[in-house]
Amino acid sequence: MTPIRLYDLQVRDDRRPSPFCWRIKYALAHKGLPFDAVPIALTDIPSIGGGAHKTVPIIEDGGKTVGDSWAIADYLDEAYPDRPRLFGSPAERELCRFVEASLFVSAGKPLFFAYVKDVFDHALERDRDYFRQSREKLLGFTLEELAHGRAERIEAARAGLDSVRLTLKGGGPFLSGAHPGYADYIVGGFLLWVASVATAPLLKGDDPLLEWLGRVQDLHGGLGRKSPLNALAA
Amino acid sequence: MTPIRLYDLQVRDDRRPSPFCWRIKYALAHKGLPFDAVPIALTDIPSIGGGAHKTVPIIEDGGKTVGDSWAIADYLDEAYPDRPRLFGSPAERELCRFVEASLFVSAGKPLFFAYVKDVFDHALERDRDYFRQSREKLLGFTLEELAHGRAERIEAARAGLDSVRLTLKGGGPFLSGAHPGYADYIVGGFLLWVASVATAPLLKGDDPLLEWLGRVQDLHGGLGRKSPLNALAA
Repeated sequence: MTPIRLYDLQVRDDRRPSPFCWRIKYALAHKGLPFDAVPIALTDIPSIGGGAHKTVPIIEDGGKTVGDSWAIADYLDEAYPDRPRLFGSPAERELCRFVEASLFVSAGKPLFFAYVKDVFDHALERDRDYFRQSREKLLGFTLEELAHGRAERIEAARAGLDSVRLTLKGGGPFLSGAHPGYADYIVGGFLLWVASVATAPLLKGDDPLLEWLGRVQDLHGGLGRKSPLNALAA
Repeated sequence: MTPIRLYDLQVRDDRRPSPFCWRIKYALAHKGLPFDAVPIALTDIPSIGGGAHKTVPIIEDGGKTVGDSWAIADYLDEAYPDRPRLFGSPAERELCRFVEASLFVSAGKPLFFAYVKDVFDHALERDRDYFRQSREKLLGFTLEELAHGRAERIEAARAGLDSVRLTLKGGGPFLSGAHPGYADYIVGGFLLWVASVATAPLLKGDDPLLEWLGRVQDLHGGLGRKSPLNALAA
């Protein structure tokens, strides 16, 4: 079959930071669908699919273009029902949304604030002006101002992952249980975003999340190791 | 069929505070299994099933005694596979564990600290000494010391429920989607625990959680309204 095209945000050294693209790469691999992760610059996103989408991921499957990671995940389960499902039940899908919401609330802001300057420093030359302007407008701070208090933000983000640690402690080896599932790809995607650009470690060396993330990275032929990453722990 | 006996913690005025008993009452109703919620005093728990369990819920089903809410939920799905399942997939069960873990981390401590004195004030006379002693040992504070800073704790607990609000905002009408599921019973059970004894409101009057909780209370013939409750919102 013709591989699905996934437009995947690219920064310097062919690093791939987007947490939402990461989860879709995992989703495609989970379903055993061949795909090409086509690198794209931030400012080139409007050139795809007639400018209908402002963010990645975007997939092209035959003549069909789908944007937004939740819409893509739903599309994949609908279009390929005979492949392994991303969501074993409608409730499982909603609980994956809870996992995402929970991480946004508990770790989203400190994580984003702590690492957005690292993403900027890795941005492609032609994306830099737009990146700075759009992010500073969104955050209400200059990227340089965010450097202050970074240690505290990293500590807050690290603590914000306690719900994942607690779940794994009484279960595992995956967040979804014996087998990896979309919740693993959501959380894994966020950590691979950090690892793609981090100049300061998010985790401590003895963090149990590292072992779990290693398992996620190993999945699907080592998918989580196929683009450059920095160390996530000191 | 012979109703299952569920030992359900009782305090004054036949109030039923245990969040873990609440979720099992909902689980039994979800599966359409007839049950008696047998009231029990805290200090009488060791008299059940040869003292094998230190906490409720405990169920007796025929000759079988099962304690611990997760063990009971698993038992019910195993023993009654033809009834509606609590967990549509193994991953759904693990994500329900994530929901519980997430609430423990984000709201557990402030919620417990803010309302433990209210539970004590409603305790049965014969439970009071044991309740005070065991809780003060656990918390490292006297119950009266916990009264200080209660407003801040309530505010923290309220904010700790943002992940539930955010999930419902993009979905609903239940946390598990179109139909209620175990995640609804977990979160609902925590709020019914608070409502069973609260002398200070946890939520504001316009909180979207109230509408959702109302729906959960209405389920299974109004199960969540069958014992006395105080107002959860000002």
